[in-house]
Amino acid sequence: MTLWGGRFTGVTDEAMRRFGDSIAFDRRLYEADVQASIAYARGLNRAGIITDEERDELVSGLEQVREEFRTGAFRLCPGDEDIHTAVERRLGQFVGNVAGKLHTGRSRNDQVATDLRLYLLDEVSCLRRALREVQAAIVEKAESHLGVVMPGYTHAQPAQPLLFSHWLMSFFWKLQRDQERLRDSARRTSVLPLGSGALAGNPFGIDRRALAGELGFDAVTQNSVDAVSDRDYVVEFLAAAALLQVHLSGLAEDLILWSSREFAFVRLDDAYCTGSSLMPQKRNPDSLELVRGKSGRVIGHLLQLLAVIKGLPSGYNKDLQEDKEALFDVLDTLQLLLPVAAGLLRTLRIDAERMAEALDDSMLATDLADHLVRKGVPFRRSHALVGQAVKRAEELHLSLGRLPIHEYRAIAGEFDADLYGVFDHRRSVERRDVEGGTAPAAVVVQIERAQALLAEEQ
Amino acid sequence: MTLWGGRFTGVTDEAMRRFGDSIAFDRRLYEADVQASIAYARGLNRAGIITDEERDELVSGLEQVREEFRTGAFRLCPGDEDIHTAVERRLGQFVGNVAGKLHTGRSRNDQVATDLRLYLLDEVSCLRRALREVQAAIVEKAESHLGVVMPGYTHAQPAQPLLFSHWLMSFFWKLQRDQERLRDSARRTSVLPLGSGALAGNPFGIDRRALAGELGFDAVTQNSVDAVSDRDYVVEFLAAAALLQVHLSGLAEDLILWSSREFAFVRLDDAYCTGSSLMPQKRNPDSLELVRGKSGRVIGHLLQLLAVIKGLPSGYNKDLQEDKEALFDVLDTLQLLLPVAAGLLRTLRIDAERMAEALDDSMLATDLADHLVRKGVPFRRSHALVGQAVKRAEELHLSLGRLPIHEYRAIAGEFDADLYGVFDHRRSVERRDVEGGTAPAAVVVQIERAQALLAEEQ
Amino acid sequence: MTLWGGRFTGVTDEAMRRFGDSIAFDRRLYEADVQASIAYARGLNRAGIITDEERDELVSGLEQVREEFRTGAFRLCPGDEDIHTAVERRLGQFVGNVAGKLHTGRSRNDQVATDLRLYLLDEVSCLRRALREVQAAIVEKAESHLGVVMPGYTHAQPAQPLLFSHWLMSFFWKLQRDQERLRDSARRTSVLPLGSGALAGNPFGIDRRALAGELGFDAVTQNSVDAVSDRDYVVEFLAAAALLQVHLSGLAEDLILWSSREFAFVRLDDAYCTGSSLMPQKRNPDSLELVRGKSGRVIGHLLQLLAVIKGLPSGYNKDLQEDKEALFDVLDTLQLLLPVAAGLLRTLRIDAERMAEALDDSMLATDLADHLVRKGVPFRRSHALVGQAVKRAEELHLSLGRLPIHEYRAIAGEFDADLYGVFDHRRSVERRDVEGGTAPAAVVVQIERAQALLAEEQ
Amino acid sequence: MTLWGGRFTGVTDEAMRRFGDSIAFDRRLYEADVQASIAYARGLNRAGIITDEERDELVSGLEQVREEFRTGAFRLCPGDEDIHTAVERRLGQFVGNVAGKLHTGRSRNDQVATDLRLYLLDEVSCLRRALREVQAAIVEKAESHLGVVMPGYTHAQPAQPLLFSHWLMSFFWKLQRDQERLRDSARRTSVLPLGSGALAGNPFGIDRRALAGELGFDAVTQNSVDAVSDRDYVVEFLAAAALLQVHLSGLAEDLILWSSREFAFVRLDDAYCTGSSLMPQKRNPDSLELVRGKSGRVIGHLLQLLAVIKGLPSGYNKDLQEDKEALFDVLDTLQLLLPVAAGLLRTLRIDAERMAEALDDSMLATDLADHLVRKGVPFRRSHALVGQAVKRAEELHLSLGRLPIHEYRAIAGEFDADLYGVFDHRRSVERRDVEGGTAPAAVVVQIERAQALLAEEQ
Repeated sequence: MTLWGGRFTGVTDEAMRRFGDSIAFDRRLYEADVQASIAYARGLNRAGIITDEERDELVSGLEQVREEFRTGAFRLCPGDEDIHTAVERRLGQFVGNVAGKLHTGRSRNDQVATDLRLYLLDEVSCLRRALREVQAAIVEKAESHLGVVMPGYTHAQPAQPLLFSHWLMSFFWKLQRDQERLRDSARRTSVLPLGSGALAGNPFGIDRRALAGELGFDAVTQNSVDAVSDRDYVVEFLAAAALLQVHLSGLAEDLILWSSREFAFVRLDDAYCTGSSLMPQKRNPDSLELVRGKSGRVIGHLLQLLAVIKGLPSGYNKDLQEDKEALFDVLDTLQLLLPVAAGLLRTLRIDAERMAEALDDSMLATDLADHLVRKGVPFRRSHALVGQAVKRAEELHLSLGRLPIHEYRAIAGEFDADLYGVFDHRRSVERRDVEGGTAPAAVVVQIERAQALLAEEQ
Repeated sequence: MTLWGGRFTGVTDEAMRRFGDSIAFDRRLYEADVQASIAYARGLNRAGIITDEERDELVSGLEQVREEFRTGAFRLCPGDEDIHTAVERRLGQFVGNVAGKLHTGRSRNDQVATDLRLYLLDEVSCLRRALREVQAAIVEKAESHLGVVMPGYTHAQPAQPLLFSHWLMSFFWKLQRDQERLRDSARRTSVLPLGSGALAGNPFGIDRRALAGELGFDAVTQNSVDAVSDRDYVVEFLAAAALLQVHLSGLAEDLILWSSREFAFVRLDDAYCTGSSLMPQKRNPDSLELVRGKSGRVIGHLLQLLAVIKGLPSGYNKDLQEDKEALFDVLDTLQLLLPVAAGLLRTLRIDAERMAEALDDSMLATDLADHLVRKGVPFRRSHALVGQAVKRAEELHLSLGRLPIHEYRAIAGEFDADLYGVFDHRRSVERRDVEGGTAPAAVVVQIERAQALLAEEQ
Repeated sequence: MTLWGGRFTGVTDEAMRRFGDSIAFDRRLYEADVQASIAYARGLNRAGIITDEERDELVSGLEQVREEFRTGAFRLCPGDEDIHTAVERRLGQFVGNVAGKLHTGRSRNDQVATDLRLYLLDEVSCLRRALREVQAAIVEKAESHLGVVMPGYTHAQPAQPLLFSHWLMSFFWKLQRDQERLRDSARRTSVLPLGSGALAGNPFGIDRRALAGELGFDAVTQNSVDAVSDRDYVVEFLAAAALLQVHLSGLAEDLILWSSREFAFVRLDDAYCTGSSLMPQKRNPDSLELVRGKSGRVIGHLLQLLAVIKGLPSGYNKDLQEDKEALFDVLDTLQLLLPVAAGLLRTLRIDAERMAEALDDSMLATDLADHLVRKGVPFRRSHALVGQAVKRAEELHLSLGRLPIHEYRAIAGEFDADLYGVFDHRRSVERRDVEGGTAPAAVVVQIERAQALLAEEQ
Repeated sequence: MTLWGGRFTGVTDEAMRRFGDSIAFDRRLYEADVQASIAYARGLNRAGIITDEERDELVSGLEQVREEFRTGAFRLCPGDEDIHTAVERRLGQFVGNVAGKLHTGRSRNDQVATDLRLYLLDEVSCLRRALREVQAAIVEKAESHLGVVMPGYTHAQPAQPLLFSHWLMSFFWKLQRDQERLRDSARRTSVLPLGSGALAGNPFGIDRRALAGELGFDAVTQNSVDAVSDRDYVVEFLAAAALLQVHLSGLAEDLILWSSREFAFVRLDDAYCTGSSLMPQKRNPDSLELVRGKSGRVIGHLLQLLAVIKGLPSGYNKDLQEDKEALFDVLDTLQLLLPVAAGLLRTLRIDAERMAEALDDSMLATDLADHLVRKGVPFRRSHALVGQAVKRAEELHLSLGRLPIHEYRAIAGEFDADLYGVFDHRRSVERRDVEGGTAPAAVVVQIERAQALLAEEQ
């Protein structure tokens, strides 16, 4: 028996039933559905629609249903097309006719929107904790490796020396922005649609602010037509999740590269590597590759939902049922992925020696140009002169620091023997001591700020 | 016990194991995996690597494994990280040490690529049959409603009269192009990667053409590095599926609109509608809305895979494991959706009377302009004159066919009393008798060609 | 002459030059580039790198360059590969060698990131004003049509009566969330990257907070590696823009439908319609179709950028140059589209009579069920009983309000003659008087809140 | 003066005009538009609608218009909203009233569809030539470097030795599939829509097959409703282009990695590198990064069009105007990019010595396991034994080839002193001599087949 069949003659086609049913995936909303229904039963009572006894029967029946879900005792029946139908059907078996009063003035449209927001708020809160663990792993690692200098790269070519901790902390800030976006999106999720009915609003004078208070929402929706079809909060969450995943894909890319035999700056723990079914020597960074690859999935789901909503007429349309699997898959993906990311960072081994060996003089070419600047040479000229020195050194198969002074002076008279003092990677790093720079002092400040932010969130 | 752990000291992190395991979704490849392994065992024997007895043991063991899967008796063990591992593990339990010879010269890289192609070829063949049913439903409906004239629309505004059958057949051709694209993509899928090893090729002189013949592939891959990482066939299939879904979304949009109370040109059968939990009068075209909405899902999965592959280095990378869930979800979606589409078309009721009432004179404005053209008025001028007649008729709240002759002649002398003969919707339709036009004779030809194409495919 | 050629022997391939140059599209950053350079010159002076005279020469030279751009007098030269190069080259022609001091400690990496943020902040501010105009048009229209009752739809089927103003206001709130997302994204854009150098930070002790203050940024970036490659603010803006566009596509869909001859609830002004080159009677809602269609463009650009960034190693990579055209195209699209949307709403004609005619009794089926609820019938039962009444009325080709009392009572004894009082659409609307409901009183409150929000923003 | 204004009273809003006009981007269709119009004029004459003189006037007038476009003499006028309007307007200025006869029975709907197909067919043909150049560069390079052995990678970790030529040729086959997809999509593009009118077909008995023949189309569309709204050929082209771009992004990724200082296997020519405005030593592979990054653009445009078409009602809708800019941008991108790709491959320097140095013993672990297999050890066991050897060698900081025999024998008795013969990278390569394998003999066959395919295409 469906909830809606009174006016129908024919029966639903079996293929259609399987096509339309959502219980297979929306079952996980049971906690939210029961919680919202309990609040609604209390609201109906406050509005004088049901008696105190009826309210208590409903609440206790709903608690029984929830208990069955929690313990795994709940059994689906034919006709349980979605979680809302299943809960109401089972409630009827527990409490009888009074179950039929629960849906008074409510529609599945405002009900599902409420459930989904409740569920998402809870999940985002878990996600943010898991993300904080990744950030904490970054900060710890950065703090414990403050002395390590390594080559910084742009365009995958050596650029300038960096503190390893500075490189690592760059991901802290990306993830911190993700935290902020998740927080902002949660703020916009925390708005109660219940009491919007199918699209026109509730005719029984239900107190929506009281409902919101009971369910922990910060506000109530301001327009019932908007409330039942709005999925902005899902899109906004997916957009934040996509960017988060893209950030992690960048971290993974760096670490895959640096785990390569040719770089060998870092070594993943065995716990996060796998081997090959064919090649006995293999030790592959599968964990990182999956972190990178799963960004496609999240981007795909974001676009899916935008494509679904695009061009829909207002009011609820069944197309919107397509929001859930995409959302759930992203939540599951991140719940699985974030602890892996935290774990692999925590157990990552850094090869400081190898990094030091990879520092070469050409990465100090800018410092050499800056050295001339300090003597009064305009930077454009000093850049050109050092460029010529680089070329000459390459011709002679020498490093910049070994290019003899007469070669330098053949290029320009501004070069002086004191130029050789430039070739000190640690000094180069120390000079970049502005806010956000790679100098140890600046990085310490950076780490302290990060720690303060993490502490704040707890 | 993993297949690859010999050189490892540490154990896999538990979160990592759940993150990396694919058995939950690649289990469905068991038929393909066993089939390809049987062929490979025979290949190893032909190449002299295993004896006839060993071959027979392997083949019969693999058949036992397959039987367990088919009957549901197969039980997963810890360590069954993917379908290939699970099959090989179980094979070992059946046949002992000889199981360890099956993987000789083979890698999971060429194995999974082979399995996935085999699986997809089979699935696409099913899909094409299901799609043919949708096309057949279109052609039958078109043939049985040849007499029905209805308004044709552009920009959602009345344009010119059409045969209903002509409108409907427009979708036949869209789907026919989808069939062709699916066929072309299957042709490029039917290329055997087995024998490519991990990336360098098979060192045991395996006869790849014999393998291809036995497994029903049309050709063998020409480069082992390409073979193990190539997922073009998945992308190409997803692109074809996305366009198919977008076509169906357009059909759904038309039918949703025409099922509205305001149009009421067609009526969906009860079997494909649902009601409302709140509003007792409701009869919603849920089936059509889901058909429309699911296009987002397929588009999303296409983009997912493109994003995953983008920028990957050559050779196999674990990111590619992300191809499967996207592909499987699209296959499942279409397997569910196409029978619903065929069923709702077959049971759709057409309200020919209502369509006839919706034909008005303004839709013959082009015919009126054409009428002047036949008298020698250049089309640009005739268009402008009829445009003025339309405006005048609106001012007087008259239809074009009721606008008095003096009003017409006030606009231009070229108008004559014989113009009123233009206002016959059936004659308008009949005049458009070029190939592909809406004239009944042309539509009959169109339907015959469609029937011939359908017959050809069987 | 390039800025970077000192160490090169070969010359750039001509095809490569055209492939890599960005001046064709980044030229529009000239204001931002000059502004940031002026601030940087002052910063260099404050840091003791250049003298007061040098600073003044640079500032006045930069102002001359800007003037040339503003007046259109600026002429590109070969070698002007991007706007930064072009500005610096021209500056050199104005002020000579001192121009070569401007780039001291600065890289195009932090320069372009600064320019783009400055530019975007300015553009978003314009966009938000234009969006406010659309919101204002909605509120005005809603306020001036408060008396109009119309059918509300879900699943494109009649659902319940609504105030036209309530339907229209549903879009106000969607756009208000867009405003908030744009504001939040602007907050995260307003962070200064200048002083991050190529990736390691500025070695000349530049005062980054002073630069931020001068350029109007709220904060400075905390990590130089992150700062030069971060494009979150572009992605976040594009995501907000995509959702905004999707909202407008829904508004367009409704209005296209309601402009159809079959609905005819609204009439677009001639100023926003076009005709047909062939069919003289045509009056097509082109403006609305473009508003709908352009959502694809914005979604596409969002995807583009996510796909570009996915899997990039850290530090600047040239791939990031692909951010600009996507961003600029979205900005241009919205700057063109929003005034059209505001204009077509302002000039839209509402046919209240036609809307009233479209109200039928079946849309009050829920009210009838609610009526029974008020008499003590549980809602599930009342829903089923009214469903049967709907079916019976359809069989007899009667409206619910004309179904005789004996027919009602044949269904259930709970029906009483007072049920006919339910069939009043205005009363139905009035009953839904909760916060966010469609009752006139609630809608007035809604409009007042909207007006307050608009006032606040000014 | 518009082509469609007869029935309008109001004038188009200026913002709307700018919003709707397409002349800025569809201007490039002028050749196609004139060509199709000339064919149509001849068709009208054959159908008896215009006289021979009128036909000749139209044809010669159209040729004059084309000449103006070709020479750049054409001047836009207000009201030239698109290329079709502009051509017809100018034609009227050349030939007077007879210009008004050209559009008889034709609509912009079938006209624009015809123009776009003509244009695309021509462009795809150019693209395929440019792509062939890239393939030819690959084959030449592969042929001239047949002796070079290098490490093959999976998961970015050393896997097995490969011929450099084999790696390179892997891209030939990817691009060859792209060629095939472009060819298939062109086949489906080569179908004439002209003669479909606005949606109902041509009422003047125009001979569509003759038109197709004259314009070089292979077939004519079979349904006029489908013909005017079908954009499958654009989507299919964009999907093929996206995959092509993704392939090139993979090639770029490999080369970026291998150009890094740490790999240093290849060196890009100066002509395809750029430097840094700040760091004088820099030599960045910008060309490769742009090749990689532009894949996002093409994927984005594919998505855009799918999102635009999704859920559109049948018949032409203005949303479809959004097809052009996306398509044109992809065509322009590839026309710019492919010659750069060919050039950088042609001038790429291969460091064979460095590649040889990067070959180590662990990459022959599989060969060692195969060696045991040949002695009768089941592969699974031999894989495990070699895995232990790898671990032991790592513990002792020895290579596999230096691990003493007693260590091997401590692991398993199957190891024998002849195992050391395995450690020869060239012999490893030679053993993989199946079709598609990396053995020199197999690669020579591969190259010959590629050359045959290239020759065929010419």
